[in-house]
Amino acid sequence: MTTAPAGATGPGPDAHAAVTAIAREAKKASRVLATATRATKDAALHAMAEALVDASDRIVAGNAEDLERGRRGGMKESLLDRLALDPLRVAAIADALRELAALPDPVGEVVRGSTLPNGLRLRQVRVPMGVVGMIYEARPNVTVDAAGLALKSGNAVILRGGSAAASSNEVIVEVLGDALAAQGLPRTLVQSIDAFGRAGAVELMRARGLVDVLVPRGGADLIQTVVRESVVPVIETGVGNCHVFVDATADVAKAVPIVLNSKTQRTGVCNAAETLLVHRDVAATFLPAVLAALGEKDVTIHGDEATAAALPAGLRFEPATERDWETEYLSLDLAVKVVDSLDEALEHISRYSSGHTEVICTQDVTSVRRFTTELDSAALIVNASSRFTDGGQFGLGAEIGISTQKLHARGPMGLAELTTTTWIVEGDGQIRQ
Amino acid sequence: MTTAPAGATGPGPDAHAAVTAIAREAKKASRVLATATRATKDAALHAMAEALVDASDRIVAGNAEDLERGRRGGMKESLLDRLALDPLRVAAIADALRELAALPDPVGEVVRGSTLPNGLRLRQVRVPMGVVGMIYEARPNVTVDAAGLALKSGNAVILRGGSAAASSNEVIVEVLGDALAAQGLPRTLVQSIDAFGRAGAVELMRARGLVDVLVPRGGADLIQTVVRESVVPVIETGVGNCHVFVDATADVAKAVPIVLNSKTQRTGVCNAAETLLVHRDVAATFLPAVLAALGEKDVTIHGDEATAAALPAGLRFEPATERDWETEYLSLDLAVKVVDSLDEALEHISRYSSGHTEVICTQDVTSVRRFTTELDSAALIVNASSRFTDGGQFGLGAEIGISTQKLHARGPMGLAELTTTTWIVEGDGQIRQ
Repeated sequence: MTTAPAGATGPGPDAHAAVTAIAREAKKASRVLATATRATKDAALHAMAEALVDASDRIVAGNAEDLERGRRGGMKESLLDRLALDPLRVAAIADALRELAALPDPVGEVVRGSTLPNGLRLRQVRVPMGVVGMIYEARPNVTVDAAGLALKSGNAVILRGGSAAASSNEVIVEVLGDALAAQGLPRTLVQSIDAFGRAGAVELMRARGLVDVLVPRGGADLIQTVVRESVVPVIETGVGNCHVFVDATADVAKAVPIVLNSKTQRTGVCNAAETLLVHRDVAATFLPAVLAALGEKDVTIHGDEATAAALPAGLRFEPATERDWETEYLSLDLAVKVVDSLDEALEHISRYSSGHTEVICTQDVTSVRRFTTELDSAALIVNASSRFTDGGQFGLGAEIGISTQKLHARGPMGLAELTTTTWIVEGDGQIRQ
Repeated sequence: MTTAPAGATGPGPDAHAAVTAIAREAKKASRVLATATRATKDAALHAMAEALVDASDRIVAGNAEDLERGRRGGMKESLLDRLALDPLRVAAIADALRELAALPDPVGEVVRGSTLPNGLRLRQVRVPMGVVGMIYEARPNVTVDAAGLALKSGNAVILRGGSAAASSNEVIVEVLGDALAAQGLPRTLVQSIDAFGRAGAVELMRARGLVDVLVPRGGADLIQTVVRESVVPVIETGVGNCHVFVDATADVAKAVPIVLNSKTQRTGVCNAAETLLVHRDVAATFLPAVLAALGEKDVTIHGDEATAAALPAGLRFEPATERDWETEYLSLDLAVKVVDSLDEALEHISRYSSGHTEVICTQDVTSVRRFTTELDSAALIVNASSRFTDGGQFGLGAEIGISTQKLHARGPMGLAELTTTTWIVEGDGQIRQ
């Protein structure tokens, strides 16, 4: 185990001491980075990118071990594909670091400020969080993304990746650490606690005061476990039971492609649509058109009776149950329901949504106004695909996840969301009366 | 128990069902308020203020029960004073609601926005959180402040006050509810769970999904309990081990009043200074002056040897121990240490600070730059009193607390900090390629 983190004494009862030591090192390293200039950070990102490409063979070899273990363990082909690295994928991961270097530095941004009546000069300035913890699943590109986003935003990162990608991540973290050290930065800016297994993750969730924020990324089970167990502040990401509502006045020629794109452009992602609601007044023209188009994409429809009645021949159909309204399929399945009114649509969405993204297709200004003020989701989209809820699409640059909670960050989380602020007050002797 | 909350079945095993029912009512009420105009909310605030003044006699009578119980239980005079209400204090509490009405509405503010290359019009808009939970201690004015801040920011509030103020709070919540109902708003916008005691507080901390944020306000024990036990996102407030560092180049004529004001203007508050660090190069002139001034205010000095050597006759003095550097006295006590350099001061503060407020007195630009970039606290103040870290003083209006965590809010939390944002995206048929 050549890359065991500093202080590591193996999994088990010593995880507490080891993870605490790692977190202290991270905190110390974060202080160095907090005052680093953008030029220093961007140079480090380029060096990290180059080091990954240079180490492509070693990374692919480590990844081969993971794939072999995965195959022996009966991992599904789709998961094996997400885990797999080849030189082309390593190059793409490295490019993401170069793109981060091109983004503006969030640190130092003056968020607001004023001169107070007593002459105090007040400004609220963006500063790094300090230490960011990531608990995530199999994909090794997340290791690099998280390291890059943390570095650019001035933070140290502690990584707990899935065991399925352990060998890939071990090599990647070592390569990134070497690149940082060669740039004169602490290699402890990017540390892994994978060596401590589940016990390490538990310690990370308890390290309040040493770890400033924890971002879980993965399936609903992983996220809920972290939310429940962590005393470190958590940002909840990623579960999306997204809706598209096609209103009475919708432009059918636009609504059909919007539904198709929302459902089928990519299915395994949190901003894909899972339920389609159709206003009864437009159902006769819209439903046959959209169902035929969905059928061509092999989508299975889970519909109510009105949907069943409009179904073209040859489509896969199952009668919808309560469970369908709640389900984030992440597959070529779509729940479909005909509603009598905008009110019924709003009611349905309020009840079943996970608060991620909701779309309305309409030509009516009152419907737009009500849909965008009465619903309580991270993104409310009018006449466009749900797939636009994304940091890159919103022009925020890279994203570390999509927050579905309301505290701190909501929706796509980029560099700014990995910072906090400090109030700086400058006076010349003012005291309070 | 005329004001038992809807669904209340008494303390004990039914707290879960009762608090869940209360939280659901709050959520429903919050939806009504989310789309209310500023005019509606301000009218409600004025009506609430008027109702409190009209009910002054009943509130003072309820408060008398609390005071009587407190006296029998041996409550300290200083706490009895903070608990006590008379018509003048009720009027002051009501005025705070009128001041809230005068502040701009945070809801609807466009935080940022742009038109994307594909023509999508994107804006990030401030919206209410939904349901805010407050767990706090004895002072009944917090009941009204919390209700007012929540209402103005478009949120419903669930209150768990200290048992010491139970009778006062019971009357106040009933009066506020009547005022809301008379304005055509749900009285469930302001609900108390005091009837369920500790079991109710536990349920509130578990109501993730129904309660959007929990703000504990009170002593360190209360706050730490909530941080540890809550699965609802928490904003940690209020512990302040604040430092004043008097640098080698400090203007002594300004530094003495700054130290005095930071320590003695009010002692029981989180932005009072608890430790004074003095650069050795200025100690000979500064220390005798500041110690004499502190002595006149009856401050007890907990000092190192260099401080002891400079001590004027007649001052209360105790040799400082490690414990003194860690202590938030909240009293007329001050830890004092002479340091050799700015580096030693920064090191000391980084080690012992609770991350609230740090002050530097200096005439040197490099010291200002390092102090305001290398320290990691909510407020960094140059040449002014620590007592300025306050929502009112910063010009933010009323505050619900001072956050010492980094997520969501840091420093004084006003109306904007009780909101979240939604991304609204308007297109005309865009789909993702």
